[in-house]
Amino acid sequence: MLPSAYIFQLIMNMKILVTGGAGFIGSHLCDALLARNDEVWCLDNLWLGRENNIAHLRSNQRFHFVKLDLLERPALNDLFSDAKFDAVFHLAANSDIRAGTSDTSLDQRLNFQTTVEVLDAMHKHQVKRLLFASTSAVFGENESSLGELDGPLRPISFYGASKLAAEAYISVYAHTLNIQTTVLRFPNVIGERATHGAIYDFIAKLKNSPDRLEVLGDGSQSKPYVYVSDLVHAMLLTFDTSHSKFDVFHVAGDGFTTVREIAEIVVANSSIPSAQIEFTGGDRGWPGDVPRFNYDTARIRALGWAPHYNSTNAVIHTVKRIRENGF
Amino acid sequence: MLPSAYIFQLIMNMKILVTGGAGFIGSHLCDALLARNDEVWCLDNLWLGRENNIAHLRSNQRFHFVKLDLLERPALNDLFSDAKFDAVFHLAANSDIRAGTSDTSLDQRLNFQTTVEVLDAMHKHQVKRLLFASTSAVFGENESSLGELDGPLRPISFYGASKLAAEAYISVYAHTLNIQTTVLRFPNVIGERATHGAIYDFIAKLKNSPDRLEVLGDGSQSKPYVYVSDLVHAMLLTFDTSHSKFDVFHVAGDGFTTVREIAEIVVANSSIPSAQIEFTGGDRGWPGDVPRFNYDTARIRALGWAPHYNSTNAVIHTVKRIRENGF
Repeated sequence: MLPSAYIFQLIMNMKILVTGGAGFIGSHLCDALLARNDEVWCLDNLWLGRENNIAHLRSNQRFHFVKLDLLERPALNDLFSDAKFDAVFHLAANSDIRAGTSDTSLDQRLNFQTTVEVLDAMHKHQVKRLLFASTSAVFGENESSLGELDGPLRPISFYGASKLAAEAYISVYAHTLNIQTTVLRFPNVIGERATHGAIYDFIAKLKNSPDRLEVLGDGSQSKPYVYVSDLVHAMLLTFDTSHSKFDVFHVAGDGFTTVREIAEIVVANSSIPSAQIEFTGGDRGWPGDVPRFNYDTARIRALGWAPHYNSTNAVIHTVKRIRENGF
Repeated sequence: MLPSAYIFQLIMNMKILVTGGAGFIGSHLCDALLARNDEVWCLDNLWLGRENNIAHLRSNQRFHFVKLDLLERPALNDLFSDAKFDAVFHLAANSDIRAGTSDTSLDQRLNFQTTVEVLDAMHKHQVKRLLFASTSAVFGENESSLGELDGPLRPISFYGASKLAAEAYISVYAHTLNIQTTVLRFPNVIGERATHGAIYDFIAKLKNSPDRLEVLGDGSQSKPYVYVSDLVHAMLLTFDTSHSKFDVFHVAGDGFTTVREIAEIVVANSSIPSAQIEFTGGDRGWPGDVPRFNYDTARIRALGWAPHYNSTNAVIHTVKRIRENGF
C-alpha cells in the first residue's frame, strides 16, 4: 500500500506553466504551487522578472526555469510540445501602468499579444485549463460597486485596454475552443519582490534623500491593497473550484489605504522617521491612473476567501518585510 | 454677400476619411456625406470593398478614392499628412464573422490592428473626431435587454473579440489623448452592396439550385435587422450630436426577423417561388454565431432616430432592391 502522503502527491501533481514566473506575483505563485506538490515550469524573459526571486527554488526537482519571451513563437511551441502542461497560469505582462503611457505599443505587445500567443499554443497543444491575471483597470474610472457582470468597460490606460483586449480573446477561446478559464481581476497587490508601485517608489526616493519625500498627487488617492500571499491564495482557490467555461472573479482587500497613509508608514519605518512628506497636488499621480475604485467581491468571498491582512495592514506588513529582506 | 446655399456649404464642408469606404456600409456612408457637401476620402484595400460600389462617385469633385491597406503605416501617415482630415469614420474591417473562426488571426489584423493604426495616425496628426463601427457581438451570448453601460462583455467570436479589443483601445485614446469618439454598435445591417449574410447566401444558393434552399440551423434564429440607409442616418445623427469624450450608442431595428422568414422572403422573390426550404437543424448556423440578442436603444431614440423600415420590411426592401439592381 502506498503511504497516504504519496497518494496525495500523485493526486496533486499537475504540470503547470507559470508565465512571468520570475516576477513579483509569479514567483510567489511558484512557491505556493511547489508547496502543494505541483510541478512548475517558470517561464520568464527576465525583463521585469528577476532571477533573484526564484534563486531559492533552483534546487527543487519539481521546478524548471525557462528563460523565454512569449513572443518567440517557435520556441514557445517547442516548450508546449515537450512539457505537456496540464494548466497555465498566465501572469506575464508589463505590470507598470505608467510605463504604457509613454510607449503606447508596450502593453499591446507584452499584455495583449503574449496572451494571444499563449492561447494559440494552448489550443494547438490541447491544454485545457487557464488562469489569467487581469485587472481592475479594465473598468476605467467608475466609482460604483463593481461586480463581475458589470459594465461599462472603458479603460483609461493602455494597461487596462490591453488587459481588456486579452480578456476579449480569452472569452472566445473559452467559449468556442474549450479552454476552461478563470479570470482573476487583480486589485493593487503589494509585497516583497515588487518592481514598482507607491511603496517601492517611496522607499527608493527616501534612499536618495532620506529627510524628504515628494508624493505625486494630493495624497487622497485611496485603493484597497492586498498582500501577495492573500492574492496567491485567491488564485489557487478560484483555479481549484471554478468549473465553468469562463469564470471571472474580482478580488480586493478589506478597507482602503490612502497614498498619504502609505507615505506615512514608509517614512515611519525609514532611517529618518521625522522626514518631511510633500504633496505635488492634483487628484491623481499620472494620466491613466484611476484614483479610486470599489470592487464587489461577493463571488470570491462565497468560496471562503478572505484576506489575512486588511489593506493598511498589508501595507505595514510589506514595508516591514522589505526593511528586513530588501525588495 | 454670399448666397445662403454657399454659406451652408462652407459650414458643412468637413474633410472626412471613411475607412472601408468601398465596402457595403462604407459606400452608402460616402453617398450620404457627399449629399450633405462633405469632402470625402474613401480609403479601401478592396479586399471586401468593390470599386463597383463607388463607381458612381468617381466624377464627384469632393470624392477621393485611395486604395490603401490601413496596415501600411508609412503610406497611411502620408495620407493623413496630406489631407488634414477633420474626422474619421472607421468602418474598415473583416465583417464576416464566420471567416474569423477558420483563421483566428484574421480579425485581429483587420479589425483590431487597423483600429490601433487609425488611432495612432489620428493622434500623430491631431485629428480629434472619430466614429467607430462596433458591433453587438462584443456582448457574446446574452438575452437581457442590453444598454450601452451594461456588461458583461464576453464575445464568443473572434469578430466580437477583435471589436471589443478595438473599443478598449479607442477608450484610452478618447479618455487620455482627447480623440472625441462616437462608438456605434451596429446590429445586423442589410441592403444592396452587402458581401455576405443570410440574404446574400440564400440568393447565391438559389442561383446554383433554384428549386431548393438549404438553411443552416433550424430557422428559429431571430435578429433585429436594420436597412442600411437607416444605419447611415444613425451614424450621421450620433456623429453630429454627440459631444462627450467617449460616447457609445446601440442601434437596432424595430422587431425581429427569423432566418425562416428571410428564407421565405428570398424564395418568394426568386425565379421559382415554390422552391423547397430545408433546415439542417441546431440552434445556430456556426460556432460563434449569437442566436439572438436584444438591444436597449433608448439613447439613440432619444436623439430622434427611428428606422424607416422595421426588421422584416428591411428584409423585403433589400431583397427587392437586389432583384432590381443586383448585389
